[in-house]
Amino acid sequence: MSTKYLEDFTVGEIIDTDPTFLSAEEIIKFAKLYDPQSFHLDPDKAISSPYNGLIASGLQTIAVAFGQFIRLGYITESSLGGPGIDKVDWLLPVRPEDTLTTTVEVLEVRESKTKQDRGIIRLKFLMSANGSPAVEFISTTFLLRRHNLGVK
Amino acid sequence: MSTKYLEDFTVGEIIDTDPTFLSAEEIIKFAKLYDPQSFHLDPDKAISSPYNGLIASGLQTIAVAFGQFIRLGYITESSLGGPGIDKVDWLLPVRPEDTLTTTVEVLEVRESKTKQDRGIIRLKFLMSANGSPAVEFISTTFLLRRHNLGVK
Repeated sequence: MSTKYLEDFTVGEIIDTDPTFLSAEEIIKFAKLYDPQSFHLDPDKAISSPYNGLIASGLQTIAVAFGQFIRLGYITESSLGGPGIDKVDWLLPVRPEDTLTTTVEVLEVRESKTKQDRGIIRLKFLMSANGSPAVEFISTTFLLRRHNLGVK
Repeated sequence: MSTKYLEDFTVGEIIDTDPTFLSAEEIIKFAKLYDPQSFHLDPDKAISSPYNGLIASGLQTIAVAFGQFIRLGYITESSLGGPGIDKVDWLLPVRPEDTLTTTVEVLEVRESKTKQDRGIIRLKFLMSANGSPAVEFISTTFLLRRHNLGVK
């Protein structure tokens, strides 16, 4: 898939990513490193938690959704990284083997006022687990402009 | 360290965590799984990126900061997970071997209006890399109340 530059995104555009899932092993591995709470870490303790079983760290679910978008390859050459994310809502727990589908909506496309070679794109991520909305967030990313690269 | 329940947190309280760091290997491993952009993934390509070298995925930096707090053990028994995070600002890149120190400020402590056994705590995280502010975000977490547990 060829790289999209700032001008190649349109407000309102919806981008579908490829489905994925997290295994129990991947959930536990992430929890050990970054979020060692029992309902992310220990299947036995998780059963007696309010979640009635192992669930992925919310931080891992954001990372999975973002990775689904990055793997499409759209911004491989144009991304300059981002200044932040916002409004992360964890709506439903994500469990091992849930089918995770993420759609990305282009909320805003804006040229930089100070740097001619780039602009800002705001994307709204919605990850569903087995078809039910589970995670939402908005990312902001700096993207190169096609305009300034001599790219047609 | 013994568990703190909702009532044990005070607005304005500042909690220091233990310093940590990310190795280049840990940065690359995370990037492969969740954020495969060249400045997170490939030390050679990262040198010619705007960051002049390998930097951690912003998503990994949030996870590290949150993990630093969780590892203190304060909310091991009281946490019921959280509905979201907000206002994530990546202020400076985090590089391999940077000393990462995170302070957590208690912004809000509020009893649930619908569930007597719990409440909501909002925490502001500030991670510094080698002493310079690098990552900020606000988390919201549901915590059990000491009051309803018969815990003194």
